[in-house]
Amino acid sequence: MFKAKLKAEVLKTILDAVATLVDEAKIHVTPEGLSLKAVDPAHVAMVDLSLGKKAFAEYKATDLDMGVDLDKLKDILKLAGSQDLIDIEYKEDAHKLVFKLGHITRRMSLVDTANMGDPKVPNLSLPNQVVVLASELQQGIKASEAVSDHIALVADGKAFELVAEGDTDQAHLRLEGSELIKIQAPQKSRSLFSLDYFSTMSKVVKATDAVTLNLGTDFPVKIEFDIADGNGHIIYLLAPRIESE
Amino acid sequence: MFKAKLKAEVLKTILDAVATLVDEAKIHVTPEGLSLKAVDPAHVAMVDLSLGKKAFAEYKATDLDMGVDLDKLKDILKLAGSQDLIDIEYKEDAHKLVFKLGHITRRMSLVDTANMGDPKVPNLSLPNQVVVLASELQQGIKASEAVSDHIALVADGKAFELVAEGDTDQAHLRLEGSELIKIQAPQKSRSLFSLDYFSTMSKVVKATDAVTLNLGTDFPVKIEFDIADGNGHIIYLLAPRIESE
Amino acid sequence: MFKAKLKAEVLKTILDAVATLVDEAKIHVTPEGLSLKAVDPAHVAMVDLSLGKKAFAEYKATDLDMGVDLDKLKDILKLAGSQDLIDIEYKEDAHKLVFKLGHITRRMSLVDTANMGDPKVPNLSLPNQVVVLASELQQGIKASEAVSDHIALVADGKAFELVAEGDTDQAHLRLEGSELIKIQAPQKSRSLFSLDYFSTMSKVVKATDAVTLNLGTDFPVKIEFDIADGNGHIIYLLAPRIESE
Repeated sequence: MFKAKLKAEVLKTILDAVATLVDEAKIHVTPEGLSLKAVDPAHVAMVDLSLGKKAFAEYKATDLDMGVDLDKLKDILKLAGSQDLIDIEYKEDAHKLVFKLGHITRRMSLVDTANMGDPKVPNLSLPNQVVVLASELQQGIKASEAVSDHIALVADGKAFELVAEGDTDQAHLRLEGSELIKIQAPQKSRSLFSLDYFSTMSKVVKATDAVTLNLGTDFPVKIEFDIADGNGHIIYLLAPRIESE
Repeated sequence: MFKAKLKAEVLKTILDAVATLVDEAKIHVTPEGLSLKAVDPAHVAMVDLSLGKKAFAEYKATDLDMGVDLDKLKDILKLAGSQDLIDIEYKEDAHKLVFKLGHITRRMSLVDTANMGDPKVPNLSLPNQVVVLASELQQGIKASEAVSDHIALVADGKAFELVAEGDTDQAHLRLEGSELIKIQAPQKSRSLFSLDYFSTMSKVVKATDAVTLNLGTDFPVKIEFDIADGNGHIIYLLAPRIESE
Repeated sequence: MFKAKLKAEVLKTILDAVATLVDEAKIHVTPEGLSLKAVDPAHVAMVDLSLGKKAFAEYKATDLDMGVDLDKLKDILKLAGSQDLIDIEYKEDAHKLVFKLGHITRRMSLVDTANMGDPKVPNLSLPNQVVVLASELQQGIKASEAVSDHIALVADGKAFELVAEGDTDQAHLRLEGSELIKIQAPQKSRSLFSLDYFSTMSKVVKATDAVTLNLGTDFPVKIEFDIADGNGHIIYLLAPRIESE
């Protein structure tokens, strides 16, 4: 069984985080909260999301997997203001989720989870860690979009850099010392990433929140941040591009 | 003759109410106010609108019919803020309407009314009546749009329901008791309507205003509401769809 | 050399003023400020812009021409709020402009100025002069757009008129006496202009600012206004259309 009540904005954060990578997702529900892992069709990016029961106004569940069509969920969320409470209940017999908002009841069929795998989150050893304000990262991405379709993330001692090199123009974000929330970069690292994927992921974080980047050289980047006032957590993994020079 | 002055927002309400059904309309003017009846090209919906002279800041008219191109009227209204006063005068010799807003004068040719009929509003005996806040109705419509292209309106005793049934999903608005402004439904009624038409009509009402629905089984719905602070009134009739089951 | 710091909104005003006519522009820099002349590809309109060094927070330059791709400049300005300060520096060796905003550095290649001419601003003797609030002009243009693709500008004694004549409809802005900031129209003048061009130019002026129109009969209109709190000035010349009657 699964019966919960939560603020629309929390559900929206989850949806935004996952819908950037996949159209359907398998949500795993336990008495302690929900979790979800998904890999995008191109196998370039992975999301690993968890939301504890404290993120909910009410929560009651047993172990359960639910296949959700994210576009349908998007339609339902359009009915709610960010602070509205949404009731959700799993109807096992009909294999449906029932949403209640105000005087509206919406019944949504679940999708079959038989073909949805359980992605394994690889255990990566990434030597460098940078904690930065999301707004800084988002500004660097915006500057890069006019210049190139990929960016390099560089960490070295006390400085973090986001670099986009176009044929004629360049964009460059450089943060060091107190401009960073934290940096630990014992050895210089540099990896190249698709700007499109990195941008999509970075937009999920609130501008005023902190985001942690775990970096190595020619290694995936692990992007981590809290959601739902610290009662939930998102990890993205993004594979590097091969630098062709 | 016709010479009047009114707030742009009143003229806009009229325009919005009628332009959803037709591109051109014949406005009938009398010393007491104006009125207008129109049927959409598919003969599915009808509007019957009246606006008393109290809705105007100034009003002077003799009996007169004017054929108006509603798209042109829309262009003129774009020049005005909602609280701006617009002067309108009929120039018989040139067969034009002259609008004045601030230092702007706009002359608009009228269209020939020879081919515009005078729709007869059918006299329907609809057993049930529901008065509901427009915002509730609009929320029910929004929920239905993701699910189906038609809806059922149901009245029964103390409850009113708007139901959309899709192939796999459902949307459902249920209002009863104090959630309704008024209900009088001595016998259960249910009719099916095109969501598109019903949505368009329901958007004309201000969210915070009351709207009256007169309902029967497999009968048209009669949608009524006041405009211009009670100095005008709109009636829509919408034909039912045949339920194919 | 060229090294300056200015508010984003000042740079944006320049960009908007010029990008309406051309995609690339040659900016002439001197120790006293910058200037720019450009003619649109159809040779119908010309802009003559000057911005004194007082418009800048910091300014240091020697004589220099820089060819700028205006679309690229637009991308860079998207990174800044209107009150943000932007650092600009010309790098002679790389033939680039380097912009700094917050922690972002953007390097932009300059374009070759060899094929960009130096338009001569014709010396016109226009008998009439009208000074009007930009918002009035913009309202007149908006009213005209639904009616025609060209407008007549008429000055006569104490009145200024903007007239659009369609096949069936007309739009008309008339300002006289105290509705104008100033008028000096010893002889009646009337010229016809492309509404599209005139509209684009008039939108560059802030609605609450004054704009000066210098007018003759079948002569170009000279549109003048200040920018950057009076530390800069824009002159547009727009060729008349031949009246076909």
